[in-house]
Amino acid sequence: MPEVVTLGETMVLLNPINTGPLKYVSHFVKQIGGAESNFAIGVSRLGHSAGWISRVGQDEFGKYIVSFIRGEGVDTSQVKLDKEAPTGVYFKERYENGESKVYYYRKGSAASRMTPQDLNQDYIASAKFLHVSGITPALSESCHQTVLEAIKIAKSKGVKISLDPNIRLKLWSEQRAREVIMEMLSQSDIVLPGQEEGRLLVGTDDPVKIANKMLRAGAKIVVIKLGEKGAYYATEDKAEFVPGYSVSKVVDPIGAGDGFAAGFISGLLKGWDITESVRLANAVGSRVTQVIGDVEGLPTMEDIEVFLGRKKGVER
Amino acid sequence: MPEVVTLGETMVLLNPINTGPLKYVSHFVKQIGGAESNFAIGVSRLGHSAGWISRVGQDEFGKYIVSFIRGEGVDTSQVKLDKEAPTGVYFKERYENGESKVYYYRKGSAASRMTPQDLNQDYIASAKFLHVSGITPALSESCHQTVLEAIKIAKSKGVKISLDPNIRLKLWSEQRAREVIMEMLSQSDIVLPGQEEGRLLVGTDDPVKIANKMLRAGAKIVVIKLGEKGAYYATEDKAEFVPGYSVSKVVDPIGAGDGFAAGFISGLLKGWDITESVRLANAVGSRVTQVIGDVEGLPTMEDIEVFLGRKKGVER
Amino acid sequence: MPEVVTLGETMVLLNPINTGPLKYVSHFVKQIGGAESNFAIGVSRLGHSAGWISRVGQDEFGKYIVSFIRGEGVDTSQVKLDKEAPTGVYFKERYENGESKVYYYRKGSAASRMTPQDLNQDYIASAKFLHVSGITPALSESCHQTVLEAIKIAKSKGVKISLDPNIRLKLWSEQRAREVIMEMLSQSDIVLPGQEEGRLLVGTDDPVKIANKMLRAGAKIVVIKLGEKGAYYATEDKAEFVPGYSVSKVVDPIGAGDGFAAGFISGLLKGWDITESVRLANAVGSRVTQVIGDVEGLPTMEDIEVFLGRKKGVER
Amino acid sequence: MPEVVTLGETMVLLNPINTGPLKYVSHFVKQIGGAESNFAIGVSRLGHSAGWISRVGQDEFGKYIVSFIRGEGVDTSQVKLDKEAPTGVYFKERYENGESKVYYYRKGSAASRMTPQDLNQDYIASAKFLHVSGITPALSESCHQTVLEAIKIAKSKGVKISLDPNIRLKLWSEQRAREVIMEMLSQSDIVLPGQEEGRLLVGTDDPVKIANKMLRAGAKIVVIKLGEKGAYYATEDKAEFVPGYSVSKVVDPIGAGDGFAAGFISGLLKGWDITESVRLANAVGSRVTQVIGDVEGLPTMEDIEVFLGRKKGVER
Amino acid sequence: MPEVVTLGETMVLLNPINTGPLKYVSHFVKQIGGAESNFAIGVSRLGHSAGWISRVGQDEFGKYIVSFIRGEGVDTSQVKLDKEAPTGVYFKERYENGESKVYYYRKGSAASRMTPQDLNQDYIASAKFLHVSGITPALSESCHQTVLEAIKIAKSKGVKISLDPNIRLKLWSEQRAREVIMEMLSQSDIVLPGQEEGRLLVGTDDPVKIANKMLRAGAKIVVIKLGEKGAYYATEDKAEFVPGYSVSKVVDPIGAGDGFAAGFISGLLKGWDITESVRLANAVGSRVTQVIGDVEGLPTMEDIEVFLGRKKGVER
Amino acid sequence: MPEVVTLGETMVLLNPINTGPLKYVSHFVKQIGGAESNFAIGVSRLGHSAGWISRVGQDEFGKYIVSFIRGEGVDTSQVKLDKEAPTGVYFKERYENGESKVYYYRKGSAASRMTPQDLNQDYIASAKFLHVSGITPALSESCHQTVLEAIKIAKSKGVKISLDPNIRLKLWSEQRAREVIMEMLSQSDIVLPGQEEGRLLVGTDDPVKIANKMLRAGAKIVVIKLGEKGAYYATEDKAEFVPGYSVSKVVDPIGAGDGFAAGFISGLLKGWDITESVRLANAVGSRVTQVIGDVEGLPTMEDIEVFLGRKKGVER
Repeated sequence: MPEVVTLGETMVLLNPINTGPLKYVSHFVKQIGGAESNFAIGVSRLGHSAGWISRVGQDEFGKYIVSFIRGEGVDTSQVKLDKEAPTGVYFKERYENGESKVYYYRKGSAASRMTPQDLNQDYIASAKFLHVSGITPALSESCHQTVLEAIKIAKSKGVKISLDPNIRLKLWSEQRAREVIMEMLSQSDIVLPGQEEGRLLVGTDDPVKIANKMLRAGAKIVVIKLGEKGAYYATEDKAEFVPGYSVSKVVDPIGAGDGFAAGFISGLLKGWDITESVRLANAVGSRVTQVIGDVEGLPTMEDIEVFLGRKKGVER
Repeated sequence: MPEVVTLGETMVLLNPINTGPLKYVSHFVKQIGGAESNFAIGVSRLGHSAGWISRVGQDEFGKYIVSFIRGEGVDTSQVKLDKEAPTGVYFKERYENGESKVYYYRKGSAASRMTPQDLNQDYIASAKFLHVSGITPALSESCHQTVLEAIKIAKSKGVKISLDPNIRLKLWSEQRAREVIMEMLSQSDIVLPGQEEGRLLVGTDDPVKIANKMLRAGAKIVVIKLGEKGAYYATEDKAEFVPGYSVSKVVDPIGAGDGFAAGFISGLLKGWDITESVRLANAVGSRVTQVIGDVEGLPTMEDIEVFLGRKKGVER
Repeated sequence: MPEVVTLGETMVLLNPINTGPLKYVSHFVKQIGGAESNFAIGVSRLGHSAGWISRVGQDEFGKYIVSFIRGEGVDTSQVKLDKEAPTGVYFKERYENGESKVYYYRKGSAASRMTPQDLNQDYIASAKFLHVSGITPALSESCHQTVLEAIKIAKSKGVKISLDPNIRLKLWSEQRAREVIMEMLSQSDIVLPGQEEGRLLVGTDDPVKIANKMLRAGAKIVVIKLGEKGAYYATEDKAEFVPGYSVSKVVDPIGAGDGFAAGFISGLLKGWDITESVRLANAVGSRVTQVIGDVEGLPTMEDIEVFLGRKKGVER
Repeated sequence: MPEVVTLGETMVLLNPINTGPLKYVSHFVKQIGGAESNFAIGVSRLGHSAGWISRVGQDEFGKYIVSFIRGEGVDTSQVKLDKEAPTGVYFKERYENGESKVYYYRKGSAASRMTPQDLNQDYIASAKFLHVSGITPALSESCHQTVLEAIKIAKSKGVKISLDPNIRLKLWSEQRAREVIMEMLSQSDIVLPGQEEGRLLVGTDDPVKIANKMLRAGAKIVVIKLGEKGAYYATEDKAEFVPGYSVSKVVDPIGAGDGFAAGFISGLLKGWDITESVRLANAVGSRVTQVIGDVEGLPTMEDIEVFLGRKKGVER
Repeated sequence: MPEVVTLGETMVLLNPINTGPLKYVSHFVKQIGGAESNFAIGVSRLGHSAGWISRVGQDEFGKYIVSFIRGEGVDTSQVKLDKEAPTGVYFKERYENGESKVYYYRKGSAASRMTPQDLNQDYIASAKFLHVSGITPALSESCHQTVLEAIKIAKSKGVKISLDPNIRLKLWSEQRAREVIMEMLSQSDIVLPGQEEGRLLVGTDDPVKIANKMLRAGAKIVVIKLGEKGAYYATEDKAEFVPGYSVSKVVDPIGAGDGFAAGFISGLLKGWDITESVRLANAVGSRVTQVIGDVEGLPTMEDIEVFLGRKKGVER
Repeated sequence: MPEVVTLGETMVLLNPINTGPLKYVSHFVKQIGGAESNFAIGVSRLGHSAGWISRVGQDEFGKYIVSFIRGEGVDTSQVKLDKEAPTGVYFKERYENGESKVYYYRKGSAASRMTPQDLNQDYIASAKFLHVSGITPALSESCHQTVLEAIKIAKSKGVKISLDPNIRLKLWSEQRAREVIMEMLSQSDIVLPGQEEGRLLVGTDDPVKIANKMLRAGAKIVVIKLGEKGAYYATEDKAEFVPGYSVSKVVDPIGAGDGFAAGFISGLLKGWDITESVRLANAVGSRVTQVIGDVEGLPTMEDIEVFLGRKKGVER
């Protein structure tokens, strides 16, 4: 049974070979995209067992997603193949200036049909952490209920709950996002917002104020991601700014937040204190931005040692 | 105002570069697919004006579809760009033995939201033919109503109605397909079924019996497509088997039926009799099978002359 | 009948997939290139009707060019398919430092065989603007005569003439270019030179002096393109520097001048004054540089609103 | 602990995009190739647990191989990452007439350094079958010892041994191959030769004679693969020819033998008799030849039902 | 100084990645094409020294051609780089049924500007064979004069002249082709026509009659290529049909004629008699058809031994 | 006989199409890589004859390497095709931040089997320069002996010896590299180290000190490459810093050192003094960094004139 359990949707991503408007793009590469599976792969690569709960369509895209994630060492025994609904897909549109758009084809997807009955109580109960994101409740009402049920199980079994708000305004309104995520936050041990998410959820992008408001709302540990600058965390007892690692150039920021979460939870699993765990989170997040792709840059502990200069890398 | 008007959904097709299960395919090429737009392009290439009524999403894929079809010389002035719904997409899975599967992402697509209000009465009224297929009524109830309304307008204005059954069992049940298409058929002047469609609609794959049953059901001209063998047609007065053109090898059969319909209607537009028009339909259909792609092989009249050996082709 | 009419050659561009000397490049992508058709597409995208007069070979490349341009909403009814001559093609050689070379295969191309007889007097007469460039007269003597004849028709019918010098020293000598273009300029209402073109034509790259000299030579409105800085314009009565829009990085400058011209003429067509029209020209030109390709970045009026921050873009 | 355990080398395959001499090929696709891992994936897809024992280099190619095979559902807990030696690679050269050559870069590869110490006795002991091939002993003397040790462990624990001769004359001489493989055969319960392998090992390609000679040499069940014709098997008590399944065209024969072995062992694991198991083996082998790639065509039990016409496939 | 000298144009070929009309093809691969350079490469691969006389543009395409041909072992010391004219290029259009079209951009190319002054008398004089084709005189009048001058030099120095008619009706009329090539034939020692070329030149496709008419016209050895059937040759004294080598499937016929010529001349250079030389020609021609590309399948003598089964190929 | 002779290994390089860990890369392009052949190509392009001595496997990769290098104008008459060993290959792993790793498959390669018997004494004796690198002695003991023998021959015949240390720590230890290369240096006329190589060989990265120590060790001319800054050289009599040429951006540094060496030796061959020759070396090295690839950017003398602004380039 894995040490960390997460749940959420992973879709097939059709990534254009060229930048510019999709009207003029001729070729696409098939990849996968999913915040929670990125997180699980990140935890696995850092040396801990992770499990990913989801539904995919019983189709080629669903099989691809499961093989990919299982191949990365994540337990996929709790993933259901749904005969009635397709695997979600989405298209990216990338621009040379770094901007991008996404086009979702996920309405009515297999993952949006997750229900509380999909949850294996023992599976969650035997974990140390349950990690959830604000994407899942936005997918459908049954997904919303599923994530609440998972939180309830975890809570009743003493499993710590970690929440990454991951607000996607393409999926719901600001107001609805705020209501639902604040409700989840009130049940969570750990919250990992960015500054913009702080503004949307508690009306301020000041890290100290975000932390205070979220602690008051029920969270036990709040870690605010500040990008290249690092992160600020606060608990009832303690608060600290932990500086980040400077990198020459952010090559691809996507996936950095998932890596940050994986680093932080992995630090805690190693028995490290919060400061040390945030430091690991910062390092993992930084390294992810150095490689194109969501999971390609997720480091092993050995990569981290090299990244931090504590260990010499392989002769290049 | 075009001589021929048609309506239906066109989607973006993601065509895999390699054969085999999509799980193992890495690259896809963007193309388009739509039976009615194939038909319209076919008519246009044979020298007649054609108009295509539809909805696409107000997104890059919708713009791509409209530019492609307009580029081929079809009037797209009646196509609405829908801000509320995406352009439909689908994926093909191709096998070396010629088999293929499709994976649709078209539920709730822009085209599925067509309504009778989308129809411009004068536009239809000024045409000589309205061409419809059995795909459109399967997309949604509002699409069903739209195609019925188009037929009603045409009928009231003396515009001839041509129907290609095009039964897609991925979209509805056999029984529902039969009911709806037979209802449309009863209003149509021309019906262009294949043998298998005959079996599904009137319970026999014998061309003579199909023709008789469909004439009795209200059609004026029934032309049954017999693949490489040619076609059999019947009216109240007359019936004839028109032999096809032998080709060394069928390279890609997709789109041949649309080309057949384009050839037949174009023949009638030229004032040819039914036999001559079926001959043209056979020639167009055969030629389409010689080239990969739905519209790439659609011929001009000059290509047809060369194909039939009546004229020498360009020095190769 | 279109509001704006233009004429010129469009070729098939073979664009290498990789940078570096063509000797070592293995793959090329087929695209199109033509200053005047870029302009027409730009006008069409900004909401006005545009027509493009030309010749292409009656070959696959010619058909491709016509379909592409018609697909973008430009009227191509005046394009002749020439059985006797091929469509022109050219190859680009691109370097990482932004430099590029072109290799033309356009001598004796279909477009170089345009003659005054190709012109439909009524077609030009019913337009509000005729847009010409300094490329066409350099293609052949019959092209030279054709462009002069088009100017003559426009002039006699009260159609305003707009001239983009577009000097290509690969096609003719500096001296011949100067003679011919200054002759055209003397007949033009609007001239849209760059600074370097000013130097070649009137011997100075000072915007004020260029404007004065060109006004004296017969132009009514002179707009000098100053790249990212913006543009300077002058008429008999008025002169003004209109600042440009700063962009983080010029991704691809090709096509910016054509976009500028499309923006300016579209502004005038909307009834805007010169300053407002130059502002639109600046915005269109800037936006084109943000996207790879000549026409891929040409904006709609809605894109311009978003670009200028007057309207919120689609959620990305 | 898996029901079936196998061991052997898997390499990264660089597969040319085009046919013809590699001198003129510009692009290669990265895939994997390994007879024993094909077998394990085949068993897994047919619904049984399988484990693959091996070594790969602690490099990107080694990680790729492990992720791929684990992704397909095979247990890879016994795979060692070797810091001292690289993962083997090989290149294919394919011709239009179906011929192919391979170029190995596997001398001194990580897998060639497997030793008896790599074997986990309990892991093998808890399986029902150990599957070995004649490739492994040809890789190195330590590999030879490893496979012998694995056989010894299996024998002592009552685990059935299955042997696929898989003779590769690029790796050793005919005589050495014969000596070593016949020695292994004498310890095996099941042998699965082709006819040509029969000739090399026991001097005849007559199925009946091959079977008799191999039974006399110590095997308990001999199944001779006869390609599209099917297979012939014999035990002490019984012998039978089991006809194959005709397919329209063999698209890619590579991997058919591995699929055959996977089908046969899976049949036995299901408790089927030999005839039924050979029938499954025939079906699996046939289906593999219908899809390009070694593992892409390996079927699930449901695919088999469809293939045999016992069940209707998904609507295509 | 090479044993065999040839002269002619080699162009850059832009070969589409996909079949079908070029209008719909997006990517092209750069290759080279030239009958005489194919011949020279063929001779070189069979173990004899060959030199190729030509002009290419002093541009990247010209450098590519020279490097490619020199890389294959052909002497290119007599190739001029022309600063005033570009290297010729052409596009292929390929169809699934094996048909193809070409689109030339070679008018005014560097090679078409060859003049008699380009010829180095000593270079030709020291060879044993001069090989010419009927393409060169069709390129331009100066090319015509150049090939006549080369023949004159050869004749005066006792160098044997070999002629491959290679009639290209895209370049000139039948009548002009007949006049010029028959004039060249009257000066030639060896002529290597196909049957269709026989019909165009001497009005019959009967091999015996072709041979007789050409012998009477001045040729010393006439070898008529009969495709897979083999070849028929005749001299004053002797005539024989030499059967060809059956191959399972002709993969790509282009270049087979050039390979045939290379095989025949190489046979004579080895001191073989005509029958033996035709046998080699047949074998080389057959083998070329087994591999895609003009030169990719040109064999070494060792390949020929393997092809004829006289020697065992490398273990595949 | 060439003016410059060099010897060393050239391998086939499999270059990934995308950046990032090879685990996730799907496509590779075939190229070649070899310091000494880069040098020879560089010399050839600067107008001097160069010969490259080596072994490659008698396989498709070996043939590719020989054709490529011969195509670039280098004499390959001394290259042996080895039937017993394969051509070496290597893979690159490239990152967006400019870092890269290599994975070698060269142990036991054909080139590593070079022996002193491979050397043709007359071939070396007739050259003006023998150029060697510190890579060759690291490949095998027989390679070490071969390079020593080549040096001995050169020395005895008055051929000047030029040494590029080219230290590869993947192939041997620092200490062994130092011993062997310093031994070679003691026999050399010219040494061309970088600063880091200076540190490894003589314990300092100060150019003046490196030069002094190497002169004392036996070298006659020491030229220390200082990257974009230029180079410092010293002889017994003279020492000078020669500034480099500033370039806007280093696109690809690989091959710059080989180009530097080619430029320096070519300068000496032209009879220029050391300062002038270093200037040419600087220019060649700078230009190589402006183009992706090892040899793609190697300039002709005309390119150098343009690069230095002494001559106008072709109209772009």
